[in-house]
Amino acid sequence: MIRIAIDAMGGDFGPEPIVKGTLEALKEKSFQPILVGKKDEILSLLPKGYKDKILIVDADDVIDMGDAATDALKRQESSIYKAIELVRNGEADGVVSAGHSGATMTLATLRLGRLKNVLRPALVTSMPTKSGKRSILMDAGANVDCKAEHLFQFGIMGYYYAHDMYKLDNPRVGLLANGEEDSKGNEVTKEAFKMLEGQKGFIGNVEGNNIFDGSCDVIVCDGFIGNLVLKASEGVASTISFFIKEYIRKSPVAITGALLMRKVFKLLKKQIDYAEIGGAPLVGIKGCAIVSHGKSNPKAIKNAIFQAIRYVNTGVNEHIENRLEELKK
Amino acid sequence: MIRIAIDAMGGDFGPEPIVKGTLEALKEKSFQPILVGKKDEILSLLPKGYKDKILIVDADDVIDMGDAATDALKRQESSIYKAIELVRNGEADGVVSAGHSGATMTLATLRLGRLKNVLRPALVTSMPTKSGKRSILMDAGANVDCKAEHLFQFGIMGYYYAHDMYKLDNPRVGLLANGEEDSKGNEVTKEAFKMLEGQKGFIGNVEGNNIFDGSCDVIVCDGFIGNLVLKASEGVASTISFFIKEYIRKSPVAITGALLMRKVFKLLKKQIDYAEIGGAPLVGIKGCAIVSHGKSNPKAIKNAIFQAIRYVNTGVNEHIENRLEELKK
Repeated sequence: MIRIAIDAMGGDFGPEPIVKGTLEALKEKSFQPILVGKKDEILSLLPKGYKDKILIVDADDVIDMGDAATDALKRQESSIYKAIELVRNGEADGVVSAGHSGATMTLATLRLGRLKNVLRPALVTSMPTKSGKRSILMDAGANVDCKAEHLFQFGIMGYYYAHDMYKLDNPRVGLLANGEEDSKGNEVTKEAFKMLEGQKGFIGNVEGNNIFDGSCDVIVCDGFIGNLVLKASEGVASTISFFIKEYIRKSPVAITGALLMRKVFKLLKKQIDYAEIGGAPLVGIKGCAIVSHGKSNPKAIKNAIFQAIRYVNTGVNEHIENRLEELKK
Repeated sequence: MIRIAIDAMGGDFGPEPIVKGTLEALKEKSFQPILVGKKDEILSLLPKGYKDKILIVDADDVIDMGDAATDALKRQESSIYKAIELVRNGEADGVVSAGHSGATMTLATLRLGRLKNVLRPALVTSMPTKSGKRSILMDAGANVDCKAEHLFQFGIMGYYYAHDMYKLDNPRVGLLANGEEDSKGNEVTKEAFKMLEGQKGFIGNVEGNNIFDGSCDVIVCDGFIGNLVLKASEGVASTISFFIKEYIRKSPVAITGALLMRKVFKLLKKQIDYAEIGGAPLVGIKGCAIVSHGKSNPKAIKNAIFQAIRYVNTGVNEHIENRLEELKK
């Protein structure tokens, strides 16, 4: 049975949504959850029937959003440190944390180590597209300054991630640039383009709008840009929703219209709600770590746990290692 | 009377929407339009009463979207070349082109020259925000690889652009980064941060979502990122609109709802329609050049002409030059 360590303390709303999400996941799938955090608090949130189905690892310390990621290595009593150690020691197969994402990434990278030949692990987020399927953006924020060889590896890792996790035969990998033509790009992406040319699935440069139009499965960029694009996209969606609400509020006729369109808005929300996805896996480390949003609700935690289970089951890490080894030859 | 040279040939739909937009602008404002392009074609589109109000400069050649921007300098008979020469020779005060944007920027930069002390001209686009006012993104695509001193100058130029064009007393200038904390950023933005610190209006790092939330008036980034953010934002808006239409189509109840919400969607469209704005001024050159979308409709051309008139009237170029000269001391 797959064992998932869950940092019970890290989220913005304390252990409650995390424990709830774990319980919801248990109702739907068989796995061994290991909740890591303040034992008393966790126990008080567990209904009677579940106490024997869930392991608890006590951890006194919690790394706050305000703490420096660089301190994470020293905080060995923290819930996230202990959760990651479970994977390191082979007592868990994967870890999910809605806590300090910098601390989670630092600890996962340094304590679990990188896969063979991987230069830099990268964060993967999933984006809605017009095709109904999702594209992935990689790196979504783990690596601020990237060299061409990092982008190249993101392309390789993204290919196998999409192949294994989304069951795509030949995922289309695009390099995010300021134009589709081969000649477009900045200094780093132009170099990465040359390295990616001829690789399985590589379709060349893609533009910002291609993230959402279904023309590409894996979008490669550095983590600085990935973060900007992600936040800007959330900003656009939130601004559109803000304006719709504002305009509706001012017109009784539109209020009626909005009521009749309730289902449409619900379906739309489902498309852009990150809780439907879970979290962002850090790809390229030994093991499996899912970085969840600090504001994760139980549904987001449940889906992050499912992501971790799928990640472990697919063997994506092995496929990445094999391919990078092949490329060395 | 302000004289605006208009490249009549450059847009994706030929001279018709451009001539129409010019006529619409003339109905609302007094200025001297100079249409540059194939004289016969332009004349055939002008109603009788207008032939004496509009000057025409004949130009046989048109630079296509597929042509290389670097060829623009050799194509001296092209409509965009001739339109820009009118500004260079003092026969026009500003130029509007919906043609090849690379050619327009190259010619405007090289033929008109840069303002004193300006290292790189930058493209300015305007973004909708929740506050109802607009923010500007600078650079939106003119400079792919930027150094810190370029970003620094975009901040200074953006401040005066927003001050003069949007009549803001003290525009808030933010540096686009992967987090609000001073410590965030990539190598280039961290250096630019130090240079911008203490400058009028500088509020520090801003994130992708701050472009749209009304917390910042000027967002500084390099043109590679500006292009990505712009296209990604358009992609999100277009995808949301696509899903809304899809979901409505499938439900008769929702169709009724959408009819009642027609006004809401119309207001929303107005917020995100670039035609309401006009084009993107290239700031930092001697003179005034507005780069319009290739797909510009008459309204977009009209508003681009109004932008050019306002640009010339405000004296923004002089304010930028004065400030950069002060900073040298």
